[in-house]
Amino acid sequence: MTRTELFEQIKRKESYLCVGLDTDITKIPKHLLKSDDPVFEFNRLIIDATKDFCVAYKPNLAFYESLGPRGLESLEKTVKYIPKDCFTIADAKRGDIGNTSGMYAKTFFEYYGFDSVTVAPYMGKDSVTPFLEFKNKWVILLALTSNEGARDFQMHEMNSRQYTIDNNQNSASNFKLFEDVLITSKLWGTTDNMMFVVGATHPQMFSDIRKIIPDHFLLVPGVGAQGGDLGEVSKAGMNKECGLLINSSRQIIYASAGEDFADAAGREAKKVHDEMKKFLNKIPV
Amino acid sequence: MTRTELFEQIKRKESYLCVGLDTDITKIPKHLLKSDDPVFEFNRLIIDATKDFCVAYKPNLAFYESLGPRGLESLEKTVKYIPKDCFTIADAKRGDIGNTSGMYAKTFFEYYGFDSVTVAPYMGKDSVTPFLEFKNKWVILLALTSNEGARDFQMHEMNSRQYTIDNNQNSASNFKLFEDVLITSKLWGTTDNMMFVVGATHPQMFSDIRKIIPDHFLLVPGVGAQGGDLGEVSKAGMNKECGLLINSSRQIIYASAGEDFADAAGREAKKVHDEMKKFLNKIPV
Repeated sequence: MTRTELFEQIKRKESYLCVGLDTDITKIPKHLLKSDDPVFEFNRLIIDATKDFCVAYKPNLAFYESLGPRGLESLEKTVKYIPKDCFTIADAKRGDIGNTSGMYAKTFFEYYGFDSVTVAPYMGKDSVTPFLEFKNKWVILLALTSNEGARDFQMHEMNSRQYTIDNNQNSASNFKLFEDVLITSKLWGTTDNMMFVVGATHPQMFSDIRKIIPDHFLLVPGVGAQGGDLGEVSKAGMNKECGLLINSSRQIIYASAGEDFADAAGREAKKVHDEMKKFLNKIPV
Repeated sequence: MTRTELFEQIKRKESYLCVGLDTDITKIPKHLLKSDDPVFEFNRLIIDATKDFCVAYKPNLAFYESLGPRGLESLEKTVKYIPKDCFTIADAKRGDIGNTSGMYAKTFFEYYGFDSVTVAPYMGKDSVTPFLEFKNKWVILLALTSNEGARDFQMHEMNSRQYTIDNNQNSASNFKLFEDVLITSKLWGTTDNMMFVVGATHPQMFSDIRKIIPDHFLLVPGVGAQGGDLGEVSKAGMNKECGLLINSSRQIIYASAGEDFADAAGREAKKVHDEMKKFLNKIPV
């Protein structure tokens, strides 16, 4: 999916919600366990109930891999089932030496047919660029994650002498590692094939981040169960093409543990959608 | 496998070789493609030919995932086939928020039965510690990788003011990111459940690294096809319990593209083993 197509969907559906399909077989309603493929069955009903209120779906690979090969079969069926007008994200956080990253890229883009994959930046340029060689496919690079551990390295200050790579007026100040990642890696791709993960749990950081990457889309986890606030993030992070995909997983897919789980998920997704609509209306067209 | 057991195997086999099972279906000998499971068949014959000369096997997940669910079936059979006296490494480079990392840990340790898994440090403590909660299982954390991209972030200097966490005499100097990772993360586990990845392409760094982590095992990729030198790394990196697992993948498993591939792999592995034996003989018992 191209950036223009994604923005068109956002305008059409009046939503920038991404539904996280973190489908845990131990948490899905018991009556589904009788079906041949409970994980796919759960996802299918969640997708049916939420697809009018969201523009993206993000299965986290950990949940599918935990079931071994059959979990990957559920994933394969799920990606095929997601409507073509929805952006798909393989939340896999991969990254390896060049050849090996290339193999991961083929897996997620060609075998499963995802639009995008989340990638960890630690191994540097040659671990990321193989993902950028696929037409209309996207890298979503981890920058500032939503978890407590974001403080352990991402927030550490770098020695500013390193910043000769950056020729703009910021080069004299001290950057944090995640800013180093943004400054360095934005040169590897374009706003048409790179997005960045920025957690909703750091709303105060969004305006600084927007100075470094004003035009890129951000994938924002951490709204809902992790405590991030939709309004704060939307105000601080939105750009003229929206530029945000805000993810919610548990709050939507586990809105009810009973047989009404899909209806409950639909209602939760609609609630977020209705909020988002207000913020989108403020974008100057 | 415990550290004592691993060191016993190293002494018994006179080797600290890890064979990387980066089995690419497009590179294995053509005659194997007739079998039901060519990837497993290749691995089985490689394992038979090399098991006396190595102490560890490291399948890289990217190669197995690229074939979809059936690739994971080949992986499952491969891990079961590896002799119990060999240490097994899932080279998966995972890392996610706490709960999700916990799910990856269960997958690799319990579902597949690996002894260890490689983990990326970018997301910090809560992305790593869930892997440390399994008895006699190991995290192998990326520190300084063997690829060109290691220069992009891992080698960048941190601002030394960050180092209040480290109460030793080094706290005043400027550390690089990978040193920050070593200093910070070594406190999360012990020498009995954490190893670190240090690429053979940085032999000059080994003595500095040994000042920070004298006793940990290091997993060393990059010998062979990537240009690292076994002798240099062994001299600079070895400690009194060996403390090294040196990986070789392509140079061993693709030593021949013909029907003699397994014999050729065995000969290559024996060659490395014979070298290693000399270095091991220099450890004071």
